[in-house]
Amino acid sequence: MNPPLPIPALPLAIQAIDLFGIAVFAVSGALLAAERKQTFVTFLFFAVVTGVGGGTLRDLLIGAPVFWVQGNEVLLICFAAATLVWLASRRWFAGSALLWFDAAGLGAYATYGAAKALAYGIAPVPAFAMGVLTACAGGIIRDVLAGEPSILMRPELYVTAAALSSGLLVGLALLGMTGWAAALLAALAGFALRGLAIARGWSLPAYER
Amino acid sequence: MNPPLPIPALPLAIQAIDLFGIAVFAVSGALLAAERKQTFVTFLFFAVVTGVGGGTLRDLLIGAPVFWVQGNEVLLICFAAATLVWLASRRWFAGSALLWFDAAGLGAYATYGAAKALAYGIAPVPAFAMGVLTACAGGIIRDVLAGEPSILMRPELYVTAAALSSGLLVGLALLGMTGWAAALLAALAGFALRGLAIARGWSLPAYER
Amino acid sequence: MNPPLPIPALPLAIQAIDLFGIAVFAVSGALLAAERKQTFVTFLFFAVVTGVGGGTLRDLLIGAPVFWVQGNEVLLICFAAATLVWLASRRWFAGSALLWFDAAGLGAYATYGAAKALAYGIAPVPAFAMGVLTACAGGIIRDVLAGEPSILMRPELYVTAAALSSGLLVGLALLGMTGWAAALLAALAGFALRGLAIARGWSLPAYER
Repeated sequence: MNPPLPIPALPLAIQAIDLFGIAVFAVSGALLAAERKQTFVTFLFFAVVTGVGGGTLRDLLIGAPVFWVQGNEVLLICFAAATLVWLASRRWFAGSALLWFDAAGLGAYATYGAAKALAYGIAPVPAFAMGVLTACAGGIIRDVLAGEPSILMRPELYVTAAALSSGLLVGLALLGMTGWAAALLAALAGFALRGLAIARGWSLPAYER
Repeated sequence: MNPPLPIPALPLAIQAIDLFGIAVFAVSGALLAAERKQTFVTFLFFAVVTGVGGGTLRDLLIGAPVFWVQGNEVLLICFAAATLVWLASRRWFAGSALLWFDAAGLGAYATYGAAKALAYGIAPVPAFAMGVLTACAGGIIRDVLAGEPSILMRPELYVTAAALSSGLLVGLALLGMTGWAAALLAALAGFALRGLAIARGWSLPAYER
Repeated sequence: MNPPLPIPALPLAIQAIDLFGIAVFAVSGALLAAERKQTFVTFLFFAVVTGVGGGTLRDLLIGAPVFWVQGNEVLLICFAAATLVWLASRRWFAGSALLWFDAAGLGAYATYGAAKALAYGIAPVPAFAMGVLTACAGGIIRDVLAGEPSILMRPELYVTAAALSSGLLVGLALLGMTGWAAALLAALAGFALRGLAIARGWSLPAYER
């Protein structure tokens, strides 16, 4: 609906980080399938849904062509992630390694989502929302499909970290800073907040009335 | 996909009622977050998803630009609704006040959804479906995300009331009545039916074979 | 987003099978409503969501106009399916008859989904994914809305059968075979695999580490 705009103007580094985020989320989807003792087909399905879910919603909402139907690469990345998890020893993924990968993906993905929305001429508040959605929706869809209580219902600083990255990118863009330094700052801020939440168990206060 | 058509021709009153419906549904999303003792971020998330969910699906299906990404207003309304619920005393929202607001939103939203679909040149039966979807999908998405049994699975006259409003608007339009009087009649009919269901506990017969 | 391409080039037989698939899935949605002792309105809702869900997602993803909003026919088919289930004796639908209908729909729907994606110029891997989605998403949405554990979490050869049909169609198209014989072969292969899974209880090995 909107003119196909200067997306190429997105810093190449951010585009690379985008693929990193997709792979990390795909791994997290496959890991959920592993925990539930599912079949390989379900591994593939969850890897794809989790890896591309958030970005798909973003593209539909901003009127962009859905990013993963234009070529084969993105789905192949998701398939590879699922295969890796299927073949690997559980120990590789034990402990908090995935949490940290996921934290990096969260910040990068939120940043990329907001930047893409701005590049499509979306107004600031919805562009901010797109960043949050891009980062969180894949995991939400994954949890709903698996019948798992979603991250939304836990007091962790998860959506909040995505909101920090997304909000920073939009705020800096409104101040005229649109280069890769701004994008890197936004991505790192969200990663840092999520990291602190993981390391120190930070959480938000719940409603108590 | 369809030419951007005479949406401005929608009565201004209906467009105002549209914003009212968004706010009411956003409040209902935030109230569910309150019941579940969630954090403020979850309040915001549920307010947005419930407030814009139905209209988003409608716009995607009819090929319209998604209404809330064109400006900042709609999301700010949802954020305000969530903040209001967070700050307010629970007593303000106790009892059936919300049910009645929700009933008004349901009729208005169903009417607006069907009218917008017709304005985009959608055929009558799908336009009718769009009205029902617009009114019900936000609440359904909210319930699914919260792991709540959806309104669909209860025998209440909820979807039915939306169908009455939507069906009336489409039927009257087929008869050549497209003014605000027809829209008002449709919205009030759905509100009345839902109101009677609330007041008298009316429900539909369940399948019994 | 993509130019409206030679969809008419899809074999007419496949288009007829498409309507068959919609009807079968609509019946399966209504049957779930019957099992849960729901109201007639819920029958209609589940019939529509299950009948058109997968194809809707496909059309949104490939940038095609959503197939069922262009005319009244598809929704009327779904309404008729729901009415039929409501009125019919339970015995008509007892046993495995529905499973077999569903198996036929699965193969046909996966084949049609992949063919439509290719006709819209989608790359092979995403076109393959579209076939699987078209066939499976309606049932997944139905199960999520009903709070049912989804077919994804069972080791049955369901998604796999859809993948066989979809993969065969895309593979044969890459080899230059795009006629109705290729489509029929793809549809029958998925149907056969699903049929064997039903008849012999075949399932995939689960993850066991």
